Amino acid sequence: MSQPLRLGIAGLGTVGIGVVKIIRNHAELLAQRTGRPIVITAVSARSKGKDRGVPLGDYAWEDDPVALARREDVDVFVELMGGSEGAAKDATEAAIASGKDVVTANKALLAHHGQALALAAEATGHVIRFEAAVAGGIPVIKALTEGLAANEIGRVMGVMNGTCNYILTRMENAGLTYEEAFNEADGLGYLEADPNLDVGGIDAGHKLSLLAAIAFGTQVDFPSVELEGIGAITIEDIHQAADMGYKIKLLGVAQMTGRGLEQRMSPCLVPDTSPLGQLQGGTNMVVLEGDSVGQIVLRGAGAGEGPTASAVMGDVMDIARGFRVSTFGQPATTLRKARAARAAVPAPYYLRLQLQDKPGALAKVARVLGEAGISIDRMRQYGHQDTTAPVLIVTHKTTRSSLDEALSGMATTGVVEGAPVAIRIESV
Amino acid sequence: MSQPLRLGIAGLGTVGIGVVKIIRNHAELLAQRTGRPIVITAVSARSKGKDRGVPLGDYAWEDDPVALARREDVDVFVELMGGSEGAAKDATEAAIASGKDVVTANKALLAHHGQALALAAEATGHVIRFEAAVAGGIPVIKALTEGLAANEIGRVMGVMNGTCNYILTRMENAGLTYEEAFNEADGLGYLEADPNLDVGGIDAGHKLSLLAAIAFGTQVDFPSVELEGIGAITIEDIHQAADMGYKIKLLGVAQMTGRGLEQRMSPCLVPDTSPLGQLQGGTNMVVLEGDSVGQIVLRGAGAGEGPTASAVMGDVMDIARGFRVSTFGQPATTLRKARAARAAVPAPYYLRLQLQDKPGALAKVARVLGEAGISIDRMRQYGHQDTTAPVLIVTHKTTRSSLDEALSGMATTGVVEGAPVAIRIESV
Repeated sequence: MSQPLRLGIAGLGTVGIGVVKIIRNHAELLAQRTGRPIVITAVSARSKGKDRGVPLGDYAWEDDPVALARREDVDVFVELMGGSEGAAKDATEAAIASGKDVVTANKALLAHHGQALALAAEATGHVIRFEAAVAGGIPVIKALTEGLAANEIGRVMGVMNGTCNYILTRMENAGLTYEEAFNEADGLGYLEADPNLDVGGIDAGHKLSLLAAIAFGTQVDFPSVELEGIGAITIEDIHQAADMGYKIKLLGVAQMTGRGLEQRMSPCLVPDTSPLGQLQGGTNMVVLEGDSVGQIVLRGAGAGEGPTASAVMGDVMDIARGFRVSTFGQPATTLRKARAARAAVPAPYYLRLQLQDKPGALAKVARVLGEAGISIDRMRQYGHQDTTAPVLIVTHKTTRSSLDEALSGMATTGVVEGAPVAIRIESV
Repeated sequence: MSQPLRLGIAGLGTVGIGVVKIIRNHAELLAQRTGRPIVITAVSARSKGKDRGVPLGDYAWEDDPVALARREDVDVFVELMGGSEGAAKDATEAAIASGKDVVTANKALLAHHGQALALAAEATGHVIRFEAAVAGGIPVIKALTEGLAANEIGRVMGVMNGTCNYILTRMENAGLTYEEAFNEADGLGYLEADPNLDVGGIDAGHKLSLLAAIAFGTQVDFPSVELEGIGAITIEDIHQAADMGYKIKLLGVAQMTGRGLEQRMSPCLVPDTSPLGQLQGGTNMVVLEGDSVGQIVLRGAGAGEGPTASAVMGDVMDIARGFRVSTFGQPATTLRKARAARAAVPAPYYLRLQLQDKPGALAKVARVLGEAGISIDRMRQYGHQDTTAPVLIVTHKTTRSSLDEALSGMATTGVVEGAPVAIRIESV
């Protein structure tokens, strides 16, 4: 049997402890499958004294993750601290500079610095693997980078924030308001310290930008992801969508268009009979579309100790087996700078607005849509509540810019109260 | 850029031509992603003259696949002929003996000779890859062997014969009889030359035995797969199952039990709200359950030119990238000989029988079940048709041996006409 592969683990939260447990409990299995022992030589975390439920005394301790990353007796630096700047970035850079391979679960770090880190690692023949950064335990980075490598990818989609999907399905199934479902998720510890990372779509947007880089051979471009959170979704939208055969999901979509790379993370209506529409609770799903393979759907736990640690260890075992693949599936030097195309692909939209009880009000709204070149597929007006009536409109395919023009136009009609809700209907 | 990787392709049917097309159309993409050109040097098929719609003149032609497998200018032998014996086996053995790596879509060959072939290949440091042999374009071999490698696998399940799922969903959605749906599938060219490979569960059983070997570190043991086809399923069973919230699927299940390895490929009832229950038409689905990752579900096209060629090329690209993994995820010398456990895991069963119109008939059936230690969850008796009435029974969890005892007992009651239908209800 070959030399052991020696890990240095920075970050001993849920995921870090999950990794330690797998290595302790499955030592024989891991060695049998990779042909060499996988061992931990050193660990690092904020508080040395804390009882984490697993014995850590066998491993050297470093207070400073940068020192851990530079240790002579570490082959692979496992970065499980999180955060796009500070210690995680410093330590990852130090590991690369010291000639280590890196396995990370840190989507924020790679979304912001993935290109620079990949260039640095690849310049010295080292790898950065990040299966755990996207969709938890689902081996989606592997499927896209390796299994589907012979495909030209057309589109990548995903529900990749379990907390948002939990909130939306609780609103639907239990009739909770957004605030009630949000508070429930908070009480269960599902939300990040900054909840906007979840409900604002930022966390899922990080993940989408990483998938897009692999899928389209482009440099990670998180700033170009159009982000829209779920905070404006009401229980009425969910019920109306259901009536029409749709579910509302926080859906990430990346696709290469004639005008450039479109990346969106936003609430979308999807058919309730589709795999995405049927996804309940905290589960994640990623849909990959290739020119040869057609549509591949992957589903599984998107977070949690076991699933995320499983993904980290899958990467570690690949390294133990001697597999070296470029960070984003092709050398970072060959990744093109993508031209960002905002809302390039037309789609039908669901609109909900409050119409004032005035003669000719509906006609004014219809005229604004017509002037923006938007034709109406379906429209429903409901009974008046005090002085306004809710109106639902499903448009035929239109561009986002036409829609935005119509939405501005509506504000000037004097018959629409507040801001209309507009949700894209994604064909999945 | 490194030396080209040179392929010899044996078999120019649908899949072989799909592979040729990918290599012709995506040469630059493949080279960029693997760091080296992937080229075809020679091909072999039964009929040289046949027009296959792609130019083959650039490649050397071999009438004999064994000669192709031995060519000096071939690095990887791509076996797309099919069949567990004869030319496919001879040529694969010749390729291994000549020090080539092998990529194959041949589930029958590996189900029957996988262990011997893996031993031979690994003895000289060569690899056999077979992503295309299981579930077409779905990268399930990769997910199980690599992505989930850190997991102890508890259970592997799958709908892996699209033709059977097509027949069952057509029966359900269009109200066709089994014969009508079978003939429709036949007319569409979905059936193998020997249809029993499909509807008898043999093809899917081959696939299951390969997944089980990887999942449990055991030598492929196809003869121990309990096989039951879909020929006995009636439209009534499908409707009754639907009434109770179930779908009927030809489901493969492999799991390691205290008594040994259980492998079944048989019709099962699964909840209609589960991903497996929602699977329509010719699509495949594989469910992998690991101790850390939980449940991972993979879905995609299980056959066809593009999807299967995509899987073949995924394997080829791994080899081009220098990735070498043992055929079944750990060295073939370390694979244990599994003890076969037939029907070790208890389950509830759905029973349908024709009861004669005699006093006390139902009591006799109930007594037989009771004597076998089987308790009844639900029972329905329908109106008499002539002299018999259909009776449906859902049992509580029981072993297959108790059930078989009860089924024999029923035959002696003198009140049950014909053979009862018994379908396992799988908890998914």
